[in-house]
Amino acid sequence: MTDREVRGGDVPDGHSLDAFHRGRFVLVQPKRGHRAGMDALVLAAALPSDFSGRVADLGAGAGAAGLAVLSRCPAATAVLVENAPEMLDCAQLTLAHPTNTDVANRAELLAADVTLSGKARAEAGLADNSFDFVIMNPPFNDPGDRESPDPLRRRAHVMGEGLIEAWVRSAAAITKPRGRLAAITRPESLADLLTALEGRFGKAELLPIHPRPGKAAIRVVVRATLGSRAALRIMPPLILHDEASNRFSARADAICNGLISLFGD
Amino acid sequence: MTDREVRGGDVPDGHSLDAFHRGRFVLVQPKRGHRAGMDALVLAAALPSDFSGRVADLGAGAGAAGLAVLSRCPAATAVLVENAPEMLDCAQLTLAHPTNTDVANRAELLAADVTLSGKARAEAGLADNSFDFVIMNPPFNDPGDRESPDPLRRRAHVMGEGLIEAWVRSAAAITKPRGRLAAITRPESLADLLTALEGRFGKAELLPIHPRPGKAAIRVVVRATLGSRAALRIMPPLILHDEASNRFSARADAICNGLISLFGD
Repeated sequence: MTDREVRGGDVPDGHSLDAFHRGRFVLVQPKRGHRAGMDALVLAAALPSDFSGRVADLGAGAGAAGLAVLSRCPAATAVLVENAPEMLDCAQLTLAHPTNTDVANRAELLAADVTLSGKARAEAGLADNSFDFVIMNPPFNDPGDRESPDPLRRRAHVMGEGLIEAWVRSAAAITKPRGRLAAITRPESLADLLTALEGRFGKAELLPIHPRPGKAAIRVVVRATLGSRAALRIMPPLILHDEASNRFSARADAICNGLISLFGD
Repeated sequence: MTDREVRGGDVPDGHSLDAFHRGRFVLVQPKRGHRAGMDALVLAAALPSDFSGRVADLGAGAGAAGLAVLSRCPAATAVLVENAPEMLDCAQLTLAHPTNTDVANRAELLAADVTLSGKARAEAGLADNSFDFVIMNPPFNDPGDRESPDPLRRRAHVMGEGLIEAWVRSAAAITKPRGRLAAITRPESLADLLTALEGRFGKAELLPIHPRPGKAAIRVVVRATLGSRAALRIMPPLILHDEASNRFSARADAICNGLISLFGD
């Protein structure tokens, strides 16, 4: 997904500097662990291209999804919300990198636990009714996730449903009325995600992502509107690769490079 | 969807005799109201082609889905479960029609309310653990449905979620261990369906049906296994028509004519 690993800037040992959107922004990220890829870029493509307003990137990591939104949508500002100290360090170096000046001018970094609720969440800097669009790529429930040092997060990771519920609850609180949410997840978490949306976000648009024609989906993006009661829709899927090729399809390439939106709007 | 309206047989006034699966079976059905079409044929295609065993078609109407299963799967038997007297009459005439001799020999008709539970359901003829495969096309929650004369059904129709929950509860009770369920519904009922499956059926395969490439899905088929805890998968969609054509795509045509299965198995 990365265009290339680039040189220069302030990059600590064990980290790389990677270019995205054909070099329009770079990320400082650890060489091992949670490296940004297709998921973050596709998630960022869930916003309409003419979007203007304030975006929260929940669980931002090094900032890939948030910066990809800012790179494509010049009238957007973003708050990158992350709780892991190592990823916060990466995000800070990312925002300080000279290649990122334009997007970094519209971004701020917030150290906060997305699973907080009520007063604690607001005190952590996530005020109610303060975002036009929330994007999230909740951590998967795999063995690596369980090693989180924070007992609350660890519990949430072991209980996949509880984690998604907590993240969507926070998203609903911080989104402005009629604001929107986009989440990317594995298909196995779809039922939990739809359950968490219920009574909060409606007008859900479900968009499956298939690796190739004829193969089961590997991810699903769900976009929804706070307070809407409109019905769920299943949109035409994104197919990453053509039948016999290892290269991205033209549509997937344009989406991952910030040239078009995922939902065609 | 109907190949043609055919003549002959015992067809009351206000009813038609319609051929399906290229004439391999016919249906007697009312000219107005709940006429069988694509939904029943696609639902029936959810069984693997080599299926053998006992099938329940819940809400069978005139028998389209159940007979389509029997027409494609020579080792299947089916119980057509229907509660509406007018549709039961149609199903009876359908089973008696000479064109249907082979499939009718493997079919029986059961007048029962799918929403019954516990002892009442068993007494109505739907015994626990007695089917290898259950198929269902639950009625949509539209104004026509609310005119049901049965107060229990009427309430269920108004409460869409309650109806799907009741149908899936019955399906779980009458299915044998590791037996399967397939349901076809509108995308707007997907969340209710997945909620109803939870803790009962797992290994869900979700297959969206789009009218054309680039258009939102109009239906979704979900197939699942009783007692499984395997993860949900999103399968490649069925696209009914090619981009610029009003004719069925080759795949849709083969599925609706009982030549191939929906899931490719």
